[in-house]
Order: sequence, then structure tokens, then C-alpha cells
Amino acid sequence: MAHVFKRIEGSVTAPRGFRAAGVFCDIKRLGTGKGSNKGPKRDLALIFSDARAAVAGMFTTNQICAAPVKLCIERMKRGVARAVVVNSGNANACTGKQGRHDADAMARLAASALGIKSSDVLVASTGRIGVTLPMANVGHGIKSAAGLLGTSRASAAQVADAIMTSDTRPKEVAVEFKLGGKIVRIGGVCKGAGMIQPGMSATGARPAAASLHATMLCFITTDAAIAKRALQSALEQSVAQSFNRITVDGDMSTNDTVLVLANGAAGNSKCKMQNSKFKVFQAVLDFICLELAKMIVRDGEGVSRFVTVRVRGAKNFEDADAAARAVANSALVKTSWHGGDPNWGRIIDALGYSAATVVEERVDIGYSAPGSRAVLHSLKRGQPTRATFEQLCAAVAPREFDLHINLNLGHAAAVMYAADLTADYVDFNKGDVTDPASLGG
Amino acid sequence: MAHVFKRIEGSVTAPRGFRAAGVFCDIKRLGTGKGSNKGPKRDLALIFSDARAAVAGMFTTNQICAAPVKLCIERMKRGVARAVVVNSGNANACTGKQGRHDADAMARLAASALGIKSSDVLVASTGRIGVTLPMANVGHGIKSAAGLLGTSRASAAQVADAIMTSDTRPKEVAVEFKLGGKIVRIGGVCKGAGMIQPGMSATGARPAAASLHATMLCFITTDAAIAKRALQSALEQSVAQSFNRITVDGDMSTNDTVLVLANGAAGNSKCKMQNSKFKVFQAVLDFICLELAKMIVRDGEGVSRFVTVRVRGAKNFEDADAAARAVANSALVKTSWHGGDPNWGRIIDALGYSAATVVEERVDIGYSAPGSRAVLHSLKRGQPTRATFEQLCAAVAPREFDLHINLNLGHAAAVMYAADLTADYVDFNKGDVTDPASLGG
Repeated sequence: MAHVFKRIEGSVTAPRGFRAAGVFCDIKRLGTGKGSNKGPKRDLALIFSDARAAVAGMFTTNQICAAPVKLCIERMKRGVARAVVVNSGNANACTGKQGRHDADAMARLAASALGIKSSDVLVASTGRIGVTLPMANVGHGIKSAAGLLGTSRASAAQVADAIMTSDTRPKEVAVEFKLGGKIVRIGGVCKGAGMIQPGMSATGARPAAASLHATMLCFITTDAAIAKRALQSALEQSVAQSFNRITVDGDMSTNDTVLVLANGAAGNSKCKMQNSKFKVFQAVLDFICLELAKMIVRDGEGVSRFVTVRVRGAKNFEDADAAARAVANSALVKTSWHGGDPNWGRIIDALGYSAATVVEERVDIGYSAPGSRAVLHSLKRGQPTRATFEQLCAAVAPREFDLHINLNLGHAAAVMYAADLTADYVDFNKGDVTDPASLGG
Repeated sequence: MAHVFKRIEGSVTAPRGFRAAGVFCDIKRLGTGKGSNKGPKRDLALIFSDARAAVAGMFTTNQICAAPVKLCIERMKRGVARAVVVNSGNANACTGKQGRHDADAMARLAASALGIKSSDVLVASTGRIGVTLPMANVGHGIKSAAGLLGTSRASAAQVADAIMTSDTRPKEVAVEFKLGGKIVRIGGVCKGAGMIQPGMSATGARPAAASLHATMLCFITTDAAIAKRALQSALEQSVAQSFNRITVDGDMSTNDTVLVLANGAAGNSKCKMQNSKFKVFQAVLDFICLELAKMIVRDGEGVSRFVTVRVRGAKNFEDADAAARAVANSALVKTSWHGGDPNWGRIIDALGYSAATVVEERVDIGYSAPGSRAVLHSLKRGQPTRATFEQLCAAVAPREFDLHINLNLGHAAAVMYAADLTADYVDFNKGDVTDPASLGG
């Protein structure tokens, strides 16, 4: 199922009927230019669909949520949109009534520049918390971007660039597959780096059993024709298995947002949940989201290792999830990964204080290459194995490896895609108080 | 109430009728000596009461709990003891049946050397997880220590030294006060440094509403005569307000242990819970535990700042506790403390993803000198105040400060004593895989 597609180049302009642009408009007020696409890194982008598109979204469940998130959650009810306007450098979070006014104004300015209805525009922001947007700059940026909209890979790359904050590289993916006999494309961009342990839901409301904790933003476009409800359902499953399963530092942002626009330009007969082809769409969207989510972890602030924490044998999913998150967020486990130290004592310690039921004499801990089933165990049923320290060090030496934990108490499983904790992370995030503009959100 | 006592010098041998010693017996197998009190830092200690003492204890609620913890929990039922034997360098955790056998043997060896019953000996360990104890060395150490027992401050200081692992300095406190007309003393030693967010209970069982996450060890002696039940009750309250409210790195150890021995040598009429003098004892024990707990945070691995997180105005205690722990354990908040950055955005973000109910428009955030009520607010009712960036930087520049958070939703409050997160913490804990003996538990 997962191989019915092929990767293609580009991202949000790979699907037909989408145009994009990114510009620099000095949202951080560096004073180096206005409304220009020259100068420093871009900080404002537009994604535009030639036709009205079905839309689905997932949003932070942080109770402190940014103005643009509130705007998007409200507009999801209509289930249609034509454009996304997004800025970096300022989160427009904790900005009160002015913040909401500014988010609304961003939508109006974009609508005006694009010649569409304001209610057809979605808004996203990332950057510093608690500072109001420089709306004159934002206005210049929107006009510039609207004038530069294009369908090329380079236009999409401008979006990927504009949404970056502490990211060191742009994050793009696109695929092509057949749906109902037609060639369909899905493309996406995202950003992450710090404040990364998203826990998103469709309404920003917390699930009953929440174990939640970046700003991460992700924008996905597709030319598939798909019913709104099917699109939202597919996105919820894809996010549950991807963005909601990553952690860099365990902090959940005020701005986490994933949006998908489906404009139907591929001309397939509309995909609905009861169709067999829905499973195909789901599988491809799962792939897109997981690829983008993993890029966020690999490019997390200061990250030197990417570890897939695979817990199984838990009594139930809540236990599996709690166990995987405890390990993935333990400062001692994360520093041992950084040091290349196969320290199972810290891992079993974290399991033991997690909310999951854990029995020492049952716990297996081992390592493999990414995706491999050839597991080298350090612990079997609570007892150290004969694997030598050198062998175990070799297993955790690569930049990427899988950590396998079996609680041997049941049949539930959960995965977390996690990063190590490095001195570079600390140095980056302690900021420089002599340069307030360096201090992150 | 809290000033009915005076601080005196020393620790566990300040109360009458207690003797102590600490030796080096090479538990980490550095190969630099055996059963000697010369050579490197001591790693085994004895605390001995001339008379049988009432005993109380609090223990880790980690489901993975070390053999000596299991032994102590069982022996608490009798409520009496005469000696504690403790080693550093090896946690005797995740060591299976051999581990329990070794903990029992430590008690027997100590009993034999001291000429008392084995069941009157309590055991504690701290250090690497998953390695069995070198019992020949332990045996030599116990014999040496038993031969060196003394009542001097220097003897107590040997204990404080012997229990240290990554601690940079010994932690001792002692006070003298009047109880029922008699001069009574309480003294204590402790150790901490990493894997520090204790959540202890009397039985190792988790409280219903657990929000728990060091090895920390603490041994307290007193010559007060006090009923067993009163002693356990007093310790539970003291620990709830001290050791269970500290965090260095959010990791809860397999070995956290607090023990109090009360041998009655002061000759006061036995203190019981219904006595008015019980409140006096409680207040003094509260002070002893809080002083020692704060020493652990101040000397945590790599710590450069000590922050008292004071949350009030929560709907209920669980919310206040969840809010305080989310802030105290947020990687982004802790790195901003390290950087001297008064970043309220990260603080409100952590509040928002905590399990506590938080309303953005209600939140106050401010700073003061330790214990001061002169709070400089950065945020009032969700809005930035007129305090300048320079003023706020000055408030978070000292090595110690208080962070005041008012949720303005109710009347519940909670405090956490927290450390910042530094590159030194990361460097220390990533270890050196070329020297396995350097890798911590």
C-alpha cells in the first residue's frame, strides 16, 4: 500500500493549480529592508489555490494558543479555503485583542492582494511570543508575495525558506500516485527546530487521555478531489502517527499547525471515506506527514542523533505512549544518546517513573539499525544480556538508530521519533540577552 | 514556630547516642585500595545508634526500585532500627535476586561488625544501575567503618563524604531546640546531583494523583524520644514540602531514600502526635528537610541557577503542582534561566501545555529576590507590563531568584525548587564511553 506512489521533486506547487511565493519583509525588525525578496532570509509566504479547495487542519492543544491558530480553528468549520498566509519571526501569540485583530488583518490583506474573499484565507505564524506583529511590514510583504506567485519548484522553495526559524535547512516533500485512474500529487513543506513535542487535535481541544506536550508548521497541498470530511479524517490519522509522535525538547508550542488544501485539479472522481481509494490517499498522506515529521526531528536544535523509540508489549496504548514519551523526554536518556552511551539503566529508570505499568523482570531493551528487525538486546527480562559494552556502543554510535523496548505485559505499542540533548541545544536556547532579538519564542 | 531552634555545627553525630564513620573500599573497582580510609573519596558509611531507635522512611515511587529500597520498605513495618549501612558507586538496582541477596548480606555484615541484630540494620545504595556489588570490598569496608565509629563532627563528615556521587560538596545540617524542657538535636546528611525529581512515599506505592518524577539519599538522626507513628507522620509532611518538591532534571531515581532514626537519648517525655510539642518537632524537621533539599538543587549537576517556582491562584493543588512542575522541567524555560533571559513566553507556553487549567487572560508572571514579596511583574493578566527588558534581565541575573506565577483561577498553591539546564549538565551526563566506569546510573 505504501509503495503505490513515487517521490517527485518540489513541494506545495507540485500539485496542479497551486501557486506560491516567499519574501523578506523584516518581521523581526532587523531594519534591513522592507517588502523585498532580497536581503536576509524570507519571512512571509503565500500559498494560493486557483480554485476553492477543501481544507483540513490540526492545531496545538496548548491552552495558550496563538491568534492565527484561533482564526484557523474557526475557519475549519467551513471546510474550504483558497490561500494560506504565513510569517516567521513573530508567533503572534500572547498578544491579546491586538493579536487577533492582526491575524484577521493578515487574512484581509492577503484576500485583497489575491482578489479573493477574506474568509477563504488561513493564517499561520511562528517566532517570538508576546510581541505584536509589525503590520506595515506584513502588509508590504503580502503585496510583494502576491505579485511573485509562481508554480515552479523555486516558488515552493521560497515558502519552505520563509517559514524557517531556527531550522538549518528547508523541509519539502512531494509524491505522485494514481487515484481513480488519474495522476494525483501531494506536496508539503514544514518547519520545526525547537519547542517541539506537538499534541494537535482538530479543534485545539485536548483528547480525553492527553499526554501532550514546537512551533511546528506544516502546509500540504494536493490536487486530489476529496470530500472535506474524508480529508479531515485522513489528516487526523496521519498527524496522530507522525507530528504527534515527535519530540525534540518536550515543549509543546502555542502555534503548532498542520493545514491541507485539496483543490481537485487532478480531475479524479471525488474520494470519500467509504471508497476503497480512500485507503490509498490515506497511505500517501501518512507517508508525506511522517517524512516531514522526521525532518523536523533530524533538524531539531542542536540535534546530533535521531532515535526511534519503539515500545511494545504494553498493557494498553496509553501505557505504551506514556512509556515511549518518558524515555524520549528523559534528560538523562537524551544526554546518554548524545554521548553514544548504551545506558540501559537510565532507560529502565524512565520507564519505571512513567505512568505506564512496568515490571522490572519483564523488560527487554535493545537496539537496531533504523527499521531493521535485527535487534541487539542489552536487557532481556530485566537481566543484562551477554552483549558486550563495545557491541552496545557500536549499536548506538550511528546518527540514527532504533531503540526497542518490550514491556512484555500486553499487546499495545507506540512509537516516538526523538532527538538527543546536546550542549548545542543549551547554548542555542540560553540566548544572548545583549541581543534581545536573538531570544526565541 | 520555625525559629524555636538554633543551627549548630555537624550533622548525624550532633544528636547524642549516635556514632558514624565513612571509608573507601573501592566499590567502583577503581583498584586503588581496599578497606582503606585513605585513597580516593570514601564510598561506604555506617550510622549507628547506641540504643534501639524509632525509625521512619520515605522511598522512591519508581516502579523499578533498587534492592536496598525493597529491604528498607519491609523493615519499616517494625518501626525500629539501630544502624544504617550505605554505599556509593553502585546503586544495587536492576540486579535481580543477586541484588537482594547482596542487600541482605550488607545488613548481616554490618550487624555482625556492630554486634547487633541483622533486622536492626537498614541499607541504602547509590551509583551505577545494573551492576552487582563487589561484596568482598563491601565486607572490608563495613569492618573498617565499624572500627572507626566516632561521635565527632569529623565522623559525621565522613558519612557526608562517603555518600556523594556527582555532588561537588558534602551536605550537612544540624539544629538544637527544646522539646518538653529538654535539649533535643536533629542532624542530617544528604546527597543528590542528578536523576533528581524525587516522588517518595512511605511504602514506595504511588499516591492516587501521582505527578512524580535523582538518586537522592538523606539520613537524619535525632535524640528526641518520639513515637514511631508520630515520626513517620512528621517525615511524610516534611518530605512532601521539601525533597518531593525539588527537580534538577526531572528524572526520578530507582534509589531515592530518606531515613530518620530517633533514639530518645535526649530524655524528653515521648513526643506523640496529639502533643502540642509535636508541632515543634514537625517545624524543626521541616526546616532540616528543606535545607537539605535545597542543597541538592544548588549542587545539582552543572547547575548555575536556583529558582524557586511559586505557583498560586490555581483551581486546586493538583493544578498548582502540575503547573509548577511543567515550568520547572521545561527544557526551554531552564535554558532561558541559564542564559539570564526573562522569557515569559516560554513560561506561559509551559503553563499552557501542563495538565493545569490555565486561562491566558488571567496569568501573572513576576520575579523577586529569594523569599521577598517585592515582585517585579513581566506579565499581568496575560499582558506584558511596563517593566523594561533591562529591569527584567536584572531580576533573573542573580544565582538565586523566585519566579511568581498567579493563575488567578482559585486559591491553591504549590512550590518547586528548580535548577537551570546548562551545557555542563549535558557534558557531564553524556559520559565518556572510552571509560565505562565514568558512566553514571
